[in-house]
Amino acid sequence: MDMQLIAIGHIRSSIKDRESAPKMEHEKGAVRARIELDPAYAQGLDSMEPGAQLELFTWFHLSDRTPLMVHPRGATDKPMRGVFTTRSPNRPNPIGLHRVTLISIEAPATLIVEPLEAIDNTPVIDIKPMLKGSK
Amino acid sequence: MDMQLIAIGHIRSSIKDRESAPKMEHEKGAVRARIELDPAYAQGLDSMEPGAQLELFTWFHLSDRTPLMVHPRGATDKPMRGVFTTRSPNRPNPIGLHRVTLISIEAPATLIVEPLEAIDNTPVIDIKPMLKGSK
Repeated sequence: MDMQLIAIGHIRSSIKDRESAPKMEHEKGAVRARIELDPAYAQGLDSMEPGAQLELFTWFHLSDRTPLMVHPRGATDKPMRGVFTTRSPNRPNPIGLHRVTLISIEAPATLIVEPLEAIDNTPVIDIKPMLKGSK
Repeated sequence: MDMQLIAIGHIRSSIKDRESAPKMEHEKGAVRARIELDPAYAQGLDSMEPGAQLELFTWFHLSDRTPLMVHPRGATDKPMRGVFTTRSPNRPNPIGLHRVTLISIEAPATLIVEPLEAIDNTPVIDIKPMLKGSK
């Protein structure tokens, strides 16, 4: 089965490398950032409103897809465990999931969101409204 | 950039087609189901415990990737809106996100989970532990 992802856009952020990125969006260091969608997808934003809680899906483009055991949160003093019990960016399909608030929209298809820990130039693959009851 | 997903496993469910699948996992019709991972990924489950709250990522393999405007929840009496303001399976990158509870694990690499609305044979692409504060 063909499961080839398409980049619908890219993150523009002041966070430029993995070393300076926080592990989670609620940690110190997550910032206000831009999601620049390809204008071809502008129509997909119809009816989106500032204040919306969004689930942003990205592709961790700098990841190593091979490890099945990792140190949780990269802490080498902690025992390794199965990658599917962690949110490590190094995983067989390096999909990132980020919960953000939409601050504003700039034409044709740029979203200003916060807080976001993804690094500059990360490909964006999907945006969904948050389920009620999630946060 | 190559963004080719790998199926790490497949859903085995009594829900056999899109027509009988509920729209959301908390709706009537979501069932207990099996996630049969490829045994090559068994090590990635190390330290996973029954009762864990998981985020299950799937590939909606029956989706149409072209529409940018959709009727919310497929309700044709409601106005169309941007696909990124909905959780429609028809979207440019048809990734499904499902919140489930792990009931048990069967060797070598099968997870029994509930409630799940995904249909039988859906490819599985990732499993992450749920963030604290999410549900």
